[in-house]
Amino acid sequence: MTTYCVKFLPYDMSIDASEGDTIIRAALEAGVHVNASCGGEGVCGKCRVIIEDGVVEGGISEKLSDADQEKGYRLACQAKVKSDLVVRIPVESTIDHSVLKMQAAPRRTAHIKEMDFNELKEKGLFVAPVEKKYLELPEPTAQDNLPDITRLISFLNLTHDEHRLEVDLSVIRKIPDVMREDDFKVTATLVRPVRKIGKTRIINVEPGDATQRSYAIAVDIGTTTIYGQVIDLITGEVLAEHGEFNGQISYGEDVISRIVYAEKAGGLERLHAVVTSTINGVLKKIIKHSKIDPDGISTITLAGNTTMTQLMLKVNPRFIRRSPYVPAATLYPPIKAVSLGLELGEHVIALVYPAVSSYVGGDIVAGVMGSGIYLSDDLTLYLDVGTNAEIVIGNKDWLACAACSAGPAFEGGGLKFGMRAAKGAIEDFSLDPVTLEPMIVTIGNVRPKGICGSGLIIMVATLFEMGIINNLGKFDHDLDTPRIREDNGVYEFVLAWKDETQIDRDVVLTEIDIENLIRAKGAIYSGCMTLLTEVGMGIDDIKHIILAGGFGSYVDLERAMTIGLLPEMDPGKVTFIGNGSLMGARMSSLTNRIRKDVVEVTKKMTNFELSDTLSYMDNYIAALFLPHTNMDQFPKLKARLEARKGLWK
Amino acid sequence: MTTYCVKFLPYDMSIDASEGDTIIRAALEAGVHVNASCGGEGVCGKCRVIIEDGVVEGGISEKLSDADQEKGYRLACQAKVKSDLVVRIPVESTIDHSVLKMQAAPRRTAHIKEMDFNELKEKGLFVAPVEKKYLELPEPTAQDNLPDITRLISFLNLTHDEHRLEVDLSVIRKIPDVMREDDFKVTATLVRPVRKIGKTRIINVEPGDATQRSYAIAVDIGTTTIYGQVIDLITGEVLAEHGEFNGQISYGEDVISRIVYAEKAGGLERLHAVVTSTINGVLKKIIKHSKIDPDGISTITLAGNTTMTQLMLKVNPRFIRRSPYVPAATLYPPIKAVSLGLELGEHVIALVYPAVSSYVGGDIVAGVMGSGIYLSDDLTLYLDVGTNAEIVIGNKDWLACAACSAGPAFEGGGLKFGMRAAKGAIEDFSLDPVTLEPMIVTIGNVRPKGICGSGLIIMVATLFEMGIINNLGKFDHDLDTPRIREDNGVYEFVLAWKDETQIDRDVVLTEIDIENLIRAKGAIYSGCMTLLTEVGMGIDDIKHIILAGGFGSYVDLERAMTIGLLPEMDPGKVTFIGNGSLMGARMSSLTNRIRKDVVEVTKKMTNFELSDTLSYMDNYIAALFLPHTNMDQFPKLKARLEARKGLWK
Repeated sequence: MTTYCVKFLPYDMSIDASEGDTIIRAALEAGVHVNASCGGEGVCGKCRVIIEDGVVEGGISEKLSDADQEKGYRLACQAKVKSDLVVRIPVESTIDHSVLKMQAAPRRTAHIKEMDFNELKEKGLFVAPVEKKYLELPEPTAQDNLPDITRLISFLNLTHDEHRLEVDLSVIRKIPDVMREDDFKVTATLVRPVRKIGKTRIINVEPGDATQRSYAIAVDIGTTTIYGQVIDLITGEVLAEHGEFNGQISYGEDVISRIVYAEKAGGLERLHAVVTSTINGVLKKIIKHSKIDPDGISTITLAGNTTMTQLMLKVNPRFIRRSPYVPAATLYPPIKAVSLGLELGEHVIALVYPAVSSYVGGDIVAGVMGSGIYLSDDLTLYLDVGTNAEIVIGNKDWLACAACSAGPAFEGGGLKFGMRAAKGAIEDFSLDPVTLEPMIVTIGNVRPKGICGSGLIIMVATLFEMGIINNLGKFDHDLDTPRIREDNGVYEFVLAWKDETQIDRDVVLTEIDIENLIRAKGAIYSGCMTLLTEVGMGIDDIKHIILAGGFGSYVDLERAMTIGLLPEMDPGKVTFIGNGSLMGARMSSLTNRIRKDVVEVTKKMTNFELSDTLSYMDNYIAALFLPHTNMDQFPKLKARLEARKGLWK
Repeated sequence: MTTYCVKFLPYDMSIDASEGDTIIRAALEAGVHVNASCGGEGVCGKCRVIIEDGVVEGGISEKLSDADQEKGYRLACQAKVKSDLVVRIPVESTIDHSVLKMQAAPRRTAHIKEMDFNELKEKGLFVAPVEKKYLELPEPTAQDNLPDITRLISFLNLTHDEHRLEVDLSVIRKIPDVMREDDFKVTATLVRPVRKIGKTRIINVEPGDATQRSYAIAVDIGTTTIYGQVIDLITGEVLAEHGEFNGQISYGEDVISRIVYAEKAGGLERLHAVVTSTINGVLKKIIKHSKIDPDGISTITLAGNTTMTQLMLKVNPRFIRRSPYVPAATLYPPIKAVSLGLELGEHVIALVYPAVSSYVGGDIVAGVMGSGIYLSDDLTLYLDVGTNAEIVIGNKDWLACAACSAGPAFEGGGLKFGMRAAKGAIEDFSLDPVTLEPMIVTIGNVRPKGICGSGLIIMVATLFEMGIINNLGKFDHDLDTPRIREDNGVYEFVLAWKDETQIDRDVVLTEIDIENLIRAKGAIYSGCMTLLTEVGMGIDDIKHIILAGGFGSYVDLERAMTIGLLPEMDPGKVTFIGNGSLMGARMSSLTNRIRKDVVEVTKKMTNFELSDTLSYMDNYIAALFLPHTNMDQFPKLKARLEARKGLWK
């Protein structure tokens, strides 16, 4: 994709933008404010900018007079980058010049990290868990009438130096016909033991040379969504990926309501059947899409939280929700995929990710394994945020973990105008420092109808940093703007007036919304602090942050640090790994090194039940501020706030 | 049971008989001839004997005059032993006295040997394959909230020194409820690895102390009949046993016709379902009869010939009947019993006896293991005779085995008046040396309607030893008796005249019948000789014979040696172990020592395909005589024949 340099005047900020990006998105990226209230639909006509140099496409509107168009005025939300540009934002001349220098930091999301197949090989971490061996066997004769299986095993011994082999009944069932289909040329699929002392298991035989058809499936069983991937074991490539809503949603949105349902008569069987059916739907799609021969699939690796895992294995999770929160098991034996109701070949082995506890499940362990933090010298914070947030802190020597309930704020839940990250959700925001006029950009560039999680974080950070709200999240009532108002005793900020929205009502952000966010980020930050406290370390010791889950892909790192959700650090040290659970499942499909290490890692992972940990409440109360009671933990923010003192108000 | 001494005059032969035995059976046991042609029904009136001393019950008949009754005459087939007796057989005064001394040897069937649980323990052969461990676990707390399985394993480590444990998914499914049912008191069922290097598998958990409820099932899957036993693993006792016809009989009587059926579309699935259904029927009966809690069953050990085993495992046996006769496998992994369709607890493990080849199956291996010949210093011949005869010769150092088709003669098949050993079958026979009048005793003591296998052997041996037939099985045409006659060019001996039978026809034994028997015994004897030839040994080197199968329980050892079916030796060295397959399955249920040894034993068992072994045809031709071309192999018989030379004819 071609990128161009876009320079914004008078701020003298430059940014690289892709061809076709709108000017308003480029401005947001650069941290440059442009008034805008229609979300990018082009109807409010507020986002007027002057193209001083370069070529744009579009941006001409009836909202602009012919004369203005002549002068180079365009609507920033409609004009698309077609060359290097110089764009001037018209600002009030009264603005103090220093304010111009105080623009917010540019948008920074975490850089994406994917462990690579070749990297694995280079690091010596690649231990093939599945290998296919091609054999040309001699035809039996009266003098040499070994049983078919014995013939196979003998030649695996003889010509491939394979020992300690065991064989599945399904292979015994297939072998007589398979051997004779292509003249005693066969391919055997060997599943390696995790430890050398174990046995290599022959799980499949195919006629002819099938060594190049070698695939694995990785599945993340999320409470909300189930993702699956087809992986080529020869190249390490992901051949197809697909996600579908977990069919169990109809039986409850969260794990607790699923457990409650599972306790009813027939409930466990129902939830097991439903999740299996969703997985089968995903399998069907990814197998079709990848165009592979499904016979070439040898393993399916599944990772999920402890409840999802138990439901998938038809293990009643009833005691997971009862103190002292005991799961049935955290390590599971390899199982025939068909015995779980999965529609895969009879030979396919299902490997289930081990968990640490009832609330630190296989999904997190998979993330820890896939991200490799258990191999790192540096202290790393691993954070998977959804409705529940799972936190892991540690390095190659130790790992501490905890789960905390963040509530639905990060997914846009529990807010007056909260919504999921869908069309019409305000996902980006800035404020004119003088007029307090907002710039509002929505998903899909349509008129706004609500606020999603990423938008919320940016709004609260912006309002706080500009002094519109204080460190308790309360509005400054003295500000002279109609946008701050009281409604039934609750103060709120009008993001978009009724006629600028899709819903014929003002879209507002209330102090209660802000409170929800503060509690959510406070729970996570204090969770991290508690783990650190318990191991006698401090927030400064964290050298890297790894974000997992959908949340990690869109969160603006600077603003997340501003509100005190993430500890303050160089955003370059924050990595996003996407779906950590799926990534871990994929990595385990590719190398046995992970399966070998995982048992030790789960043993090493000390689980803290936060509610039972004394320091947690203190840490939580200290974190119910923007960004935190202890500003010394946020030195850069502290400096910025001090530099700005007196510029506004 | 009370036994009495019965002395027969004028032969001066004594025998111990049980109270209630008929005189005619006692006479047979003693080798004393009494004319009798109605099978023991009491209607021919020929078996007149004089009770000279002692008390009998019954035996009075209208066939006896009052005067004779006064003199002590009774019908031997009706008179029952009630005290020590002296019984005189009325014989023609013209008989040479020496003839009296030449009575046949007494009946001798093989002595029964059963390996004993305590004997196993004493010999140090007892290695429990299944053990139940009772644990009183601490209740979980917030400080100690180990997963249920981890708690179980930790305490098995700690308090029972158990290591290298693995666990079944079915246990994970049960454990949360089972642990809490009796206050964290549980019993775990451990299945031991065959080798130390293996893992101990936790297959079941039960609430409370269930250590005394520990059972196993042993099953012999015969082509005709399926037997099952419930075994108490604490005492080694057989709690119940039952046999039923294999439902597969409707699809063919022998293995070849079953294989042919299995090759048809759906045939394999059908035969698998049918055998499973028969086994389930047997299981139901023995579980009910033994009154055990079926939850206490941990293993089911199954032994059968290679075809029966493959059909039970749903492995197509098609190549078993095609040269070079290759089975799919001879070693099978442990399998969940439920996955084979067996109606047992989800935790029950099915262990399948390994085979040696397509025609030396798990039933024979089970017999070899159960009889312990693989541990013996002495060279032993193991013989399991049915339609097929399986032969094993060897000792602790080597074992050679072969299967040969004996044909159905031993089961009464293929004879003009052949029948199974059922009511009305002539099962015992002797001849008056002067009049050539037969003594005929039938199963059920009813008038004869045919000849069963054991009767056939006794008849042919008697006719041969008395010179009525020669060593080719041909009748002496010069004998002056209406019982020897020609019918359509085939000579035959009338065993019972039409009016003495149930079938309104003369029951006869033909030269063709005798030929069939000679071919059958020749196949077996030459099979043994071939194995010996191939290993460079001779028939004299055999120190013991072990007979298995129904055949072994009734065969008269002296007569079997007379016709050359068994090598000549002291009958005391012939042992009968009954159903060797079932016995081996039971032994394996009781001790892992056998499972450990069996793989080595099957490797040690050299299989000879007789049809491909050069010496077989020579040996076979040499064995198509009574008893054999080489009389030096039968020195005792040779001596008897020479002593008798000239006494008859």
